[in-house]
Amino acid sequence: MSVASPLATRPDCELCRSPGGRLILQTAAWRVVRVDDEDFPAFYRVIWQAHVAEWTDLDEGGQQQCMRAVSAIERVLRARLAPAKVNLATLGNVVPHLHWHVIARFDWDSHYPNPIWGNRLREVPGGARAALACPLETLDEAVRTALQALPAG
Amino acid sequence: MSVASPLATRPDCELCRSPGGRLILQTAAWRVVRVDDEDFPAFYRVIWQAHVAEWTDLDEGGQQQCMRAVSAIERVLRARLAPAKVNLATLGNVVPHLHWHVIARFDWDSHYPNPIWGNRLREVPGGARAALACPLETLDEAVRTALQALPAG
Repeated sequence: MSVASPLATRPDCELCRSPGGRLILQTAAWRVVRVDDEDFPAFYRVIWQAHVAEWTDLDEGGQQQCMRAVSAIERVLRARLAPAKVNLATLGNVVPHLHWHVIARFDWDSHYPNPIWGNRLREVPGGARAALACPLETLDEAVRTALQALPAG
Repeated sequence: MSVASPLATRPDCELCRSPGGRLILQTAAWRVVRVDDEDFPAFYRVIWQAHVAEWTDLDEGGQQQCMRAVSAIERVLRARLAPAKVNLATLGNVVPHLHWHVIARFDWDSHYPNPIWGNRLREVPGGARAALACPLETLDEAVRTALQALPAG
């Protein structure tokens, strides 16, 4: 099934009405934002611009475009932060507008190895942001640069 | 980065040593299993056969192969079960061997709208399996048929 219109929006949808985080870069198809999460500071989202709920609402071309953005972010997180693991997920139970979570996880983070939606296992003295290998502004810039290098369309 | 060898295995890895669920179908590149989960009976996994940890350890061809299997499962879940939402995730914090969770979610399920790793919100009288629109054996067969129809390689 193809997307009916690249501009399909729903006025009652949070991700149609607002960016959903700090905007890093956007194209006609998707936007990437960084999520402001104290526990998981290296947390980006790829949000499909049109209002579609499910991954298979995109045709294979759309999926590939979307996943290229996800992969570009993951590569930056791995190169800059050397995380213990990267977590990728598209859930959308609360906001059923297609978005991918891309999250760098560390063996010292508040929930590791639990999913970020699971139980907290520890406190992080000084906060998670201070424990990252580079400042978030540097990370944002590296993510932006990687996304800009993706093939258009 | 490409996969060094399609047969790369680690003797200490749970997903190198065991199927990781009820086997539905496998190719040289991936296998699909159904997870035996009382709360989430319509829960499949796409497991990459070679031992790689991260999504971006696959090149784009491998990613596409993997995601075609994920999408095929999602389409069957949507067609047969009309779930409220499908959840996709690759975490691997506990078992860092690339595998995708593909899970049909329902507004009546034990955790909805929470992630399956979040807090339980209710009990399901009679159990979740009995509430599905079709028997799991039928669902397995539909998933197998959809996977068999995918392009090889």
